[in-house]
Amino acid sequence: MAGGISLHAVDVATGRPALGMAVELVTFTPTERVIASGTLGAGGALDHPTVNEPARPGTHEARFMVGDWLRAQGLAQGPVFMEVAVFRFEVIDPAEHIHLPLKFTPWGVALFRGS
Amino acid sequence: MAGGISLHAVDVATGRPALGMAVELVTFTPTERVIASGTLGAGGALDHPTVNEPARPGTHEARFMVGDWLRAQGLAQGPVFMEVAVFRFEVIDPAEHIHLPLKFTPWGVALFRGS
Amino acid sequence: MAGGISLHAVDVATGRPALGMAVELVTFTPTERVIASGTLGAGGALDHPTVNEPARPGTHEARFMVGDWLRAQGLAQGPVFMEVAVFRFEVIDPAEHIHLPLKFTPWGVALFRGS
Amino acid sequence: MAGGISLHAVDVATGRPALGMAVELVTFTPTERVIASGTLGAGGALDHPTVNEPARPGTHEARFMVGDWLRAQGLAQGPVFMEVAVFRFEVIDPAEHIHLPLKFTPWGVALFRGS
Repeated sequence: MAGGISLHAVDVATGRPALGMAVELVTFTPTERVIASGTLGAGGALDHPTVNEPARPGTHEARFMVGDWLRAQGLAQGPVFMEVAVFRFEVIDPAEHIHLPLKFTPWGVALFRGS
Repeated sequence: MAGGISLHAVDVATGRPALGMAVELVTFTPTERVIASGTLGAGGALDHPTVNEPARPGTHEARFMVGDWLRAQGLAQGPVFMEVAVFRFEVIDPAEHIHLPLKFTPWGVALFRGS
Repeated sequence: MAGGISLHAVDVATGRPALGMAVELVTFTPTERVIASGTLGAGGALDHPTVNEPARPGTHEARFMVGDWLRAQGLAQGPVFMEVAVFRFEVIDPAEHIHLPLKFTPWGVALFRGS
Repeated sequence: MAGGISLHAVDVATGRPALGMAVELVTFTPTERVIASGTLGAGGALDHPTVNEPARPGTHEARFMVGDWLRAQGLAQGPVFMEVAVFRFEVIDPAEHIHLPLKFTPWGVALFRGS
């Protein structure tokens, strides 16, 4: 797969892709700026041009709005421990694809760069 | 995705799919028997008919031969702490696809049913 | 910490230690045999002499009875996807302590050797 | 355990606690401010008064300086994919202890609130 950044999220407390979860992809280079935002689709993936466009080198952050999604799903009422799952990473070689498959619960995450 | 079981492995110590890793898929119902075996392909996935064929209900185990693969890659010399990554699971509804995306190091695993 | 094997489990779907969960520690050397069993205590740890006694070299398996515990807690009714969380590992140097901190949901695990 | 926030990190690529890793604990309430910083001790834990002092309600972030540590250990030369492991969380009830046991490689994290 060519350059680009793809985001994916599965709620591993309930075993379901996070359909409808709001996400943001941010760069800090040269200054903080949102480069993609949207909501995850049926399989739990973000459909956005960043999936296929090479990213620019520099520090980035993916932010998954876990608390809002859990409340919208009726899976939480008030605030949760992890309101936003944050993953900060470097784009070093724009030609490499970066796949970020988040597994989350209200209490934390497993996220290792995938393939 | 329809029924079937798919296996996938990424070495998250080195950040690479486990191309060439030997894997086995076993059922315990009615008695222990290997239903699929092979080596992972370029993306880290097993290409085998079980990916598309509905599995039978019952207890199953996926076994990833981590130690052999690390030694073949030159990433380990002698025995490693986790020689085989074992994941035991139940097929309850054969119509549901079961995707098992293993993230591993020689010291352990993250594996939650994916999508 | 000196030799020995310690087991610990946290339910990361609900954010609680798995108080009361049944666990087994098995060796396969020379033949399969349970070397410790019991239920996890208030902090989620197994209180058993294996915590302090050096283990013998060879292949071992820790088994956490997730499904039974979820049903006993009222967190599941019927069978769950991961009835038993299995972690297979090697004791290579009996003088080293092996700490196994399981994080689980009904859908999978994160378990890396801890300290 | 009473209120407070404890940080712990294990390098699960090499199977070792992250002795000497620089960490920061930040609050965003009312404005961004570092409330604790230091380096992890021999077992991989931060020894700091925040371990025992109840935190104030609000959004916090733990930051683990993974890239600097890997280079200091000779485990990486240039920049790594995950330079800083970031975990953002809410303090809701100051009387509850929050234990954050990070498992990391250069490629990602598993971090679920522990006990």
